Amino acid sequence: MTMKNPDKKSLQVDASEAGGGLYSRRRFVQRGVAGAATLAAAGSVFAESPDSWRQQGDAFSNYGQPLEGTLGSRQQPIRWITSNSAVTGDGVSWTPLHDLAGTITPNGLHFERHHNGVAVVDPGSWELLINGAVGRSLAFNLDSLHRLPMVSRIAFLECGGNSNSLWHPNAVQAPAGFLHGLVSCAEWTGVRLSTLLDAVSPTDDAKWLVADGYDSAGVTVSLPLSELPEDAMLALYQNGETLRAENGYPARLLIPGWEGVTNLKWLRSLTLTDRPAMTRYDTVSYTDLLKDGTVERFSFEMGVKSLITSPSPGHTIPGSGLHEISGLAWTGAGVITRVELSADGGKSWADAELQQPVLSKAFTRFRAAWQWDGNPAILKSRATDERGRVQPERQALIEEKGTNVYYHYNAVLAWAVAANGSLSHVYA
Amino acid sequence: MTMKNPDKKSLQVDASEAGGGLYSRRRFVQRGVAGAATLAAAGSVFAESPDSWRQQGDAFSNYGQPLEGTLGSRQQPIRWITSNSAVTGDGVSWTPLHDLAGTITPNGLHFERHHNGVAVVDPGSWELLINGAVGRSLAFNLDSLHRLPMVSRIAFLECGGNSNSLWHPNAVQAPAGFLHGLVSCAEWTGVRLSTLLDAVSPTDDAKWLVADGYDSAGVTVSLPLSELPEDAMLALYQNGETLRAENGYPARLLIPGWEGVTNLKWLRSLTLTDRPAMTRYDTVSYTDLLKDGTVERFSFEMGVKSLITSPSPGHTIPGSGLHEISGLAWTGAGVITRVELSADGGKSWADAELQQPVLSKAFTRFRAAWQWDGNPAILKSRATDERGRVQPERQALIEEKGTNVYYHYNAVLAWAVAANGSLSHVYA
Repeated sequence: MTMKNPDKKSLQVDASEAGGGLYSRRRFVQRGVAGAATLAAAGSVFAESPDSWRQQGDAFSNYGQPLEGTLGSRQQPIRWITSNSAVTGDGVSWTPLHDLAGTITPNGLHFERHHNGVAVVDPGSWELLINGAVGRSLAFNLDSLHRLPMVSRIAFLECGGNSNSLWHPNAVQAPAGFLHGLVSCAEWTGVRLSTLLDAVSPTDDAKWLVADGYDSAGVTVSLPLSELPEDAMLALYQNGETLRAENGYPARLLIPGWEGVTNLKWLRSLTLTDRPAMTRYDTVSYTDLLKDGTVERFSFEMGVKSLITSPSPGHTIPGSGLHEISGLAWTGAGVITRVELSADGGKSWADAELQQPVLSKAFTRFRAAWQWDGNPAILKSRATDERGRVQPERQALIEEKGTNVYYHYNAVLAWAVAANGSLSHVYA
Repeated sequence: MTMKNPDKKSLQVDASEAGGGLYSRRRFVQRGVAGAATLAAAGSVFAESPDSWRQQGDAFSNYGQPLEGTLGSRQQPIRWITSNSAVTGDGVSWTPLHDLAGTITPNGLHFERHHNGVAVVDPGSWELLINGAVGRSLAFNLDSLHRLPMVSRIAFLECGGNSNSLWHPNAVQAPAGFLHGLVSCAEWTGVRLSTLLDAVSPTDDAKWLVADGYDSAGVTVSLPLSELPEDAMLALYQNGETLRAENGYPARLLIPGWEGVTNLKWLRSLTLTDRPAMTRYDTVSYTDLLKDGTVERFSFEMGVKSLITSPSPGHTIPGSGLHEISGLAWTGAGVITRVELSADGGKSWADAELQQPVLSKAFTRFRAAWQWDGNPAILKSRATDERGRVQPERQALIEEKGTNVYYHYNAVLAWAVAANGSLSHVYA
């Protein structure tokens, strides 16, 4: 039934409809909205005036805060913290993607990955040194940076270790954001890296950029100049306001599309060199041991990826009938060109609607309508990017990379829907 | 000198350069960046390791907060509260546009306009009634709304009373955001109003939509159905997270481009009627007494507007030389097509660069380079929108509207730069 083309003159199946009840969103207008609502005799439900009409509201605030406690049947979103108890200060906090909508991550919920806690940097004495293979070394303080031309762009930022629990042989159970939320999306404003590098007149020996930070973990990374995207910047603002401490105040690298560690926080120096520094973060961390025994290093650009955020594990679908499926897709390559959804574990796929405008190297929100018949189902999403890359199935990713890999997991994810409306993470 | 065209073969003046030192931004690369920096003998400034290398960083947090106190020579942005002391709960808080960059306003800094404080609404018992001239009255609770198709969009929101101190005969002195910051811009997610209205089957008598809220101020507004933009929505999320209390939790109207009061917070009911309700908010407030003695009511769409946020009053320009001028433009009509800048009080104008992508009914960030010679100067910005509307000069606006108007001020603003680098608000 659900595969039936409403246009009887054509046998072609609408690309936005598929098995398991995946519909194009216009079906909502035909049958979904009134079904979700309560028929009300006009005025009867609202015969009594609400308590809030009899009491004065709360006060104005200099800096607003999110609501506290539960929000009806929903939770107030928080970052979930996973610290390594053996190394104080080493850990992550996850963006609760399963509780969010749209594409912007509020600054208070942007994911964190710190190797020794949040560095506390005095902005008055902060300086950035650019030196090495340059015609002239330059130092910039905050006032001098604020005189320079700036750019703004919305960009996602993803830790190279995001989703790494999915390399495990058994499917870990947790809300979607606490498995895949080492990724966030914000509007960043700062000075283009090319503006700063042009000013120091790099010599012919300058092939790599070695960046270090003011944090006590000694995070230092090596970046090849010839591959750095032209939109790389020194970010000073996030979603309009000054960078927060946990996002690298007073200045961080922002390299749209590249894995998180290259977007160095609390930036201290940029040294132009003829070779990579081969620091711990170039060699031991953020590198993948492949099945042929070789190690993949310097794999900067993040893959094409997507997940369904609603419904997702931890949610309960309130009953059969029409529901919206919604999620996020992104790619280090630039623009997401397509997201397909399956409600039958991958047997059939339908195109989701992409929220416009689709921005390069930013979160893309996708949505579709789903007529759930109340039987067990398996939901999947699969993204394609402007370079034609398609998210692999888990088995294909493992066949390609082996089972000793720790980073850069981007396979198709699957949520199993039970007859009682609960969801769980499955390999399917 | 500054008018000189770098292309000697042509006499045509580059539209992005003008008198008073307004340059196109590429001049920065030629002469500005190194001038702003400090020449450093490689390593010498950085010979000592910073304190932050010797101490562990701060802890992870479930919900991050902005930095406290001063940030070097900058202030931590806060909303400035202007309450009416005669009527508790009646007042505003201003977005500190002069301290922000980019186009997104963080939720904690979105402006507020409350008539009796921030309504406290229990989400579990919250319902929205849609009734009146309809085929069937419907009530929606939060769970039923979350089943419906949603949309996301970035949109500015501006109070009809923003900038109203500029109707005063003398130029009021305050930071830019505390004169013009009853406007903010966020990504909103919710259900299209048309989706909800289609479901109740409006009758032929349905010409107006009367919206009331759960707040105790009795704010009720009348909106003409035939003029409501198709992108009007019932917003549930702001910048990714659940609406905050001061922005109308659990649901508000969001009518992109229309004046703030029509974007009713803490929404309670939508009643379809054959005529406007002519409430206090339709008649006494948000209406303008024109010079011919007539009253302009129901002027929903906001005008074309812009302001320079940096530098602006309260800032001090650190010295002559190259600086970036940056600001915001927006229009209720849709897209900003042009922003011109003047550094000589309006004698000559140059095109500013518009940050791409320019989104409809959203903030547009503009920027230009300015070579300040250290002499007094007057900075102005002037925006044009897709309908060809151009911001009027103050005198022209007064000639058109008279001097009894209180709302909807959108004239060109002027900042005077003194020789010591301080700025002030002037009528010029």
